[in-house]
Amino acid sequence: MAIITLTTDFGNADGYAGIMKGVILSICPDARLVDLSHAIEPQNVRQAAFVLHTAVPYFPAGTIHLAVVDPGVGSRRRPIAVQTPSGIFVGPDNGIFSFILAEFSSHHNLTAARTMSIVELTRMEYWLPSSSHTFHGRDIFAPVAAHLARGVPLANLGEPIDDPVIFPIPQPEIQPDGRIIAHILHIDRFGNLVTDIQVTGPWASLIGARTIIEIAGKRILGVHQTFADVAVGELVAYVGSSGYLEIGVRHGNAAMTLNLRPGDKIILE
Amino acid sequence: MAIITLTTDFGNADGYAGIMKGVILSICPDARLVDLSHAIEPQNVRQAAFVLHTAVPYFPAGTIHLAVVDPGVGSRRRPIAVQTPSGIFVGPDNGIFSFILAEFSSHHNLTAARTMSIVELTRMEYWLPSSSHTFHGRDIFAPVAAHLARGVPLANLGEPIDDPVIFPIPQPEIQPDGRIIAHILHIDRFGNLVTDIQVTGPWASLIGARTIIEIAGKRILGVHQTFADVAVGELVAYVGSSGYLEIGVRHGNAAMTLNLRPGDKIILE
Amino acid sequence: MAIITLTTDFGNADGYAGIMKGVILSICPDARLVDLSHAIEPQNVRQAAFVLHTAVPYFPAGTIHLAVVDPGVGSRRRPIAVQTPSGIFVGPDNGIFSFILAEFSSHHNLTAARTMSIVELTRMEYWLPSSSHTFHGRDIFAPVAAHLARGVPLANLGEPIDDPVIFPIPQPEIQPDGRIIAHILHIDRFGNLVTDIQVTGPWASLIGARTIIEIAGKRILGVHQTFADVAVGELVAYVGSSGYLEIGVRHGNAAMTLNLRPGDKIILE
Repeated sequence: MAIITLTTDFGNADGYAGIMKGVILSICPDARLVDLSHAIEPQNVRQAAFVLHTAVPYFPAGTIHLAVVDPGVGSRRRPIAVQTPSGIFVGPDNGIFSFILAEFSSHHNLTAARTMSIVELTRMEYWLPSSSHTFHGRDIFAPVAAHLARGVPLANLGEPIDDPVIFPIPQPEIQPDGRIIAHILHIDRFGNLVTDIQVTGPWASLIGARTIIEIAGKRILGVHQTFADVAVGELVAYVGSSGYLEIGVRHGNAAMTLNLRPGDKIILE
Repeated sequence: MAIITLTTDFGNADGYAGIMKGVILSICPDARLVDLSHAIEPQNVRQAAFVLHTAVPYFPAGTIHLAVVDPGVGSRRRPIAVQTPSGIFVGPDNGIFSFILAEFSSHHNLTAARTMSIVELTRMEYWLPSSSHTFHGRDIFAPVAAHLARGVPLANLGEPIDDPVIFPIPQPEIQPDGRIIAHILHIDRFGNLVTDIQVTGPWASLIGARTIIEIAGKRILGVHQTFADVAVGELVAYVGSSGYLEIGVRHGNAAMTLNLRPGDKIILE
Repeated sequence: MAIITLTTDFGNADGYAGIMKGVILSICPDARLVDLSHAIEPQNVRQAAFVLHTAVPYFPAGTIHLAVVDPGVGSRRRPIAVQTPSGIFVGPDNGIFSFILAEFSSHHNLTAARTMSIVELTRMEYWLPSSSHTFHGRDIFAPVAAHLARGVPLANLGEPIDDPVIFPIPQPEIQPDGRIIAHILHIDRFGNLVTDIQVTGPWASLIGARTIIEIAGKRILGVHQTFADVAVGELVAYVGSSGYLEIGVRHGNAAMTLNLRPGDKIILE
């Protein structure tokens, strides 16, 4: 019983996500469907990429992840499917799978790269019979995901490619004076600011009781375990659930308090 | 394994849609449940009717579509179920099934009409034991949908009727000077304006490279294939994924840019 | 095929609810997952408690209800699971199960109390291998719910406790002059005001055609069956679908019209 997750910017009002589910269940009646998000900001490919990145490790390895944030629909951007040991990914070739593709790219790890296959979806017999120019989620990506769920091999769905779009994933930068410039990767619904400092990465040593963080003109001293370590209304730095350094406000909203957005900088000492 | 879709204005906060699912699964534990929308504007029956209309063709023919946007709950409006070759529909008799009923009404097509059955839901043994005056979605419609999913025939659920409420579906009008007045049928979450000009209908010849569209004091020249055919921020006319002429703004929101609402007019030459 | 419901304040954008589902399906692939709400106001434990309270009676008795509104995550608040004849509950010990716990507490009903078991979740072998300090929904509650769905007995999951957190559930108060002060328990998405007067409780005699309700400086005469009993735009008192006296505006929003919030008072004569 294959699992198919859905990540889109379709919202919950118009029925677009439900339509994709109708298409999937028409082809693969047994598929288990799990919504990751239909509330991605319209056309915010980076937000969708981050949400997928944090969710994928918690699904069984054979899961099919269908992601449709697709500002280039109808243009020459390619529809693709990507098979990795972490799961199978179906969507537009616009960077939405950047975190996954970077993980398995030969640049990072040659052995891992050999476990990844990417195809451009060209075999129209696996699409809906008539395809629109504006809703490939329904006409191409949903039927392809359903056929994968029924066991059609990736290689049958199109031509192999090796140059998928990967957008640069923000990385902390070291300054001449030794200070570190980090970036806000993502803001969640609680207003917590997820930075690009990873607890398992090369900057892990920055995370400690003596870290000093400058953010929007304010200073935070030390990284704590959790919100409950500071008073209500106070800024707190902690390691978030996805393994990134985060900044929050206990029982509050850090993004609104500090008026910050993804891409904004913070400084660590 | 029957599929039941749900379309309501219940929102996602109060648990009302989840309660309907609890009722359904208590009666028919195997039902496949698919949310079409719970974010219909409160009491906007026309919006729900349009969402159903665009979604139904993408579900298997035996699917049961449960729709509860029900401003008249507790009044004398009838609860109904409708069986057609496209699916089975359960909800209030307030026009929410207008597009489907029009398709199969004898006015349009006598042969198609013979394939449709409509009953007023009167057999209380298929409802929850005690029925409220304010939540027929839970007390009448969800249990009826679940019994249909278990195979109870439509005819067992109530008395046949042949006068369901159908609201007039907007149609383009031709002016003495030959220009066409069309209407905005629906606005989706991206702010795209869906008009009542259908690509398969009598007005299809209006859709072409030489069409001139006047909308909110602006002029659009030609109908394109997709957003990517115009510059970012520009208005574009295109055939939308449901087969209607639509107006959008590339990477923008046409409804907000033009300050328009459903029912507003556009002119085609 | 066990049913697991989910009630959180995670919103629908970040994928947090989907991640919990990935964890559950990795452990118990057959679980039926039903969203009650992911739009609980951030950290509003009382709202979540009320939503659970109204939904639980409509699910089969063996249903597992997973509820994660958890402002104290990472602090010393206990993770718990509660077994009752109405269902099994998994979440933080912060009052989120107050209505259910009150129903089965010995204070109310000694026989019922004997049917309830509560454990503090301490057996880490039923959690994810590494647990964060900020997302116990993913790391503790989802895997525990999934193990319960697979048939692991409650007693295996931790140590019995008998002092769960129960917040005081608002009750109407009688005044020296005989008038009754009631409270707004909950406001739903339509702006309807749910009061703490229950149709099956000791105050039921207050509900009738001659009841006079004072609310926000306005007077309502009589309790009606439904909205349709008053004119559009008028205030109406009626017995809501969960058995509480409610105040609404026909085709309108009472909470916005009257500018009221949960906890605010109304007076009955």
